[in-house]
Amino acid sequence: MREIKVKASREYNIYITSGNTNFSSILERNKIKKCFIITDENVYNLHKEFLNSIKDNIIGIKVIKPGEDSKNPEVVFSIYKDLIEKGVNKKTTILAFGGGVVGDISGFVASTYMRGINLAHIPTTLLSQCDSSIGGKTGFNYGNLKNIIGTFYQPLFVYIDVNFVKTLNEKEYKNGLAEIIKYGFVCNEGLFSYIEENKKGIEEREVDKLLHIVWESARIKGDIVEKDELDSEIRHVLNFGHTVGHAIESATDFRISHGEAVAMGMNIESYIAVKQDLLEERYYDRLIKLIRYFGLPLIPEGIDSNKLIDLMKKDKKNVTNNIKFVLPNKIGHAIITTEIKQGLISQRIGEALRRQLW
Amino acid sequence: MREIKVKASREYNIYITSGNTNFSSILERNKIKKCFIITDENVYNLHKEFLNSIKDNIIGIKVIKPGEDSKNPEVVFSIYKDLIEKGVNKKTTILAFGGGVVGDISGFVASTYMRGINLAHIPTTLLSQCDSSIGGKTGFNYGNLKNIIGTFYQPLFVYIDVNFVKTLNEKEYKNGLAEIIKYGFVCNEGLFSYIEENKKGIEEREVDKLLHIVWESARIKGDIVEKDELDSEIRHVLNFGHTVGHAIESATDFRISHGEAVAMGMNIESYIAVKQDLLEERYYDRLIKLIRYFGLPLIPEGIDSNKLIDLMKKDKKNVTNNIKFVLPNKIGHAIITTEIKQGLISQRIGEALRRQLW
Repeated sequence: MREIKVKASREYNIYITSGNTNFSSILERNKIKKCFIITDENVYNLHKEFLNSIKDNIIGIKVIKPGEDSKNPEVVFSIYKDLIEKGVNKKTTILAFGGGVVGDISGFVASTYMRGINLAHIPTTLLSQCDSSIGGKTGFNYGNLKNIIGTFYQPLFVYIDVNFVKTLNEKEYKNGLAEIIKYGFVCNEGLFSYIEENKKGIEEREVDKLLHIVWESARIKGDIVEKDELDSEIRHVLNFGHTVGHAIESATDFRISHGEAVAMGMNIESYIAVKQDLLEERYYDRLIKLIRYFGLPLIPEGIDSNKLIDLMKKDKKNVTNNIKFVLPNKIGHAIITTEIKQGLISQRIGEALRRQLW
Repeated sequence: MREIKVKASREYNIYITSGNTNFSSILERNKIKKCFIITDENVYNLHKEFLNSIKDNIIGIKVIKPGEDSKNPEVVFSIYKDLIEKGVNKKTTILAFGGGVVGDISGFVASTYMRGINLAHIPTTLLSQCDSSIGGKTGFNYGNLKNIIGTFYQPLFVYIDVNFVKTLNEKEYKNGLAEIIKYGFVCNEGLFSYIEENKKGIEEREVDKLLHIVWESARIKGDIVEKDELDSEIRHVLNFGHTVGHAIESATDFRISHGEAVAMGMNIESYIAVKQDLLEERYYDRLIKLIRYFGLPLIPEGIDSNKLIDLMKKDKKNVTNNIKFVLPNKIGHAIITTEIKQGLISQRIGEALRRQLW
């Protein structure tokens, strides 16, 4: 087992393992006696033996439906209700056992029940292991706006077992790869090259490859969170692919998965960077090649650029009327800008949407 | 205008004035351009001219029904809806203009909308000026449990104009006095003596008396919040009168006002302190005399001690099965204990409830 220490407003550990750790010992080490589990139907059915290994610590389990649709007020309040009924108090730790949806909702509930009780993440998807479980963002959707209600709330620890990733279906696995490609492309050239050189082993989910890419992503994310926990500037770099990506998710009522939307967002935003003379075309080509290798989509179908622009203007990160973009300028680096005129954005997105990349 | 600086996780000012300050200049000083107002019907009707004085800064006003009943999920979500409709974003500041209910809900909404936008408090009741607007506690009720959902969230500033207090009805005014008596009795002998010596002027809401008691209370509260923002131990001292008080509020479905419940709680908890040989009876007598002078109640009618105990066990501050009490040991001092056996608590509350104090 390896550990990463994140020094945020609360200091905590990310434990990374590949199935050879006794989770009870992690609870003991963190002085946790009583847990309330929040998970989804898929994870609950697949990993009952994991929950069994800590059954003496569990005072309640809430099993929600899998998928983004669960990130709604009704689910949040049904969890509060269960917590009250099970007598959950400040001595109880909520364990978020699942992917990003479970993590986001559990984090919100833990941060607001009794003005905050302890929380630990056990992410089971590649996406949540390398991204959403780290950094303390919580939230749910309301009024068709993604994560419009949420908090920043750091966990006691994050426990990552890369073996959980082996039970994911192809689509879920690719969702995570999109974010890892993002880390490489705007934060760390070494990681990007590693993915290029080991793409077959990564595709086949070899344990040593999984450990490497999850470790690197978690480390990059932890570093950035330490510098800008509340997402006021530096952390915005992680929004690469997300300005357009979130708009695509909204425009399709979240029928397109997050990873797919981010892949398309990375394509369109990098295309803008190329056209702004920020990014050399050869770097853009390497990105496209990798996205395509993993079978991720490059262009959304049936969406026009004006609709995307309208949705982008509602992005939480905008503090002016201008749309904020993270534009890569070489592999491992990016700039953040609000300087591009709306007419030009519209034109570039239109061009990107019409390109024949297949 | 006087100022108190509170050095919490965010450093902010409490401005205290008696009507001779231009509120626009406070907005300017804090670089606030756009505001969204949350207020209640009473405050809105009484203080339209105040809102008029900053009308160019206001992008939306939400007027809720006055009273504790508004602290529910439906009201919270109706505010989120308005914020979305008015295009509120991270450049907007929510101004909580009203009493404790408005402050608690506004704080919760500000802390969770877009993972936190700016908030400033303009408390209009004595209770909110001296207590609830300071310290960052937010929340609403759910499942008949008071403030079971909430956050800690510090404002940009708190603006207190003691003149607002003059429009309160008797009952609301007394609600605030109960908390100020509490500050004196467990935190500051000087304040307690001041109230005793100036009770007539306080009763008649003389401006210099108001400025003094609000200033002292705000200072005491600010000090304690600096030492224990997240309410883990030191801040519990402010819970004097509230262990029993909250239970009385719950037992009566919040029909008894907070200040009345706290007054009764202070009586019962001090009685326990006397019986535990912690507090001399002469101090207890001074407390009772003051509570009675201001026409606050000492004993709840028609509630038995067992019901109160059951409700006290659900208090958020309990981390064991024992009930946590703040017991005064002389004027200006108190201890915090979980050592009193439940049978004894029940007996003492029973005795206190049967006492003839009128």
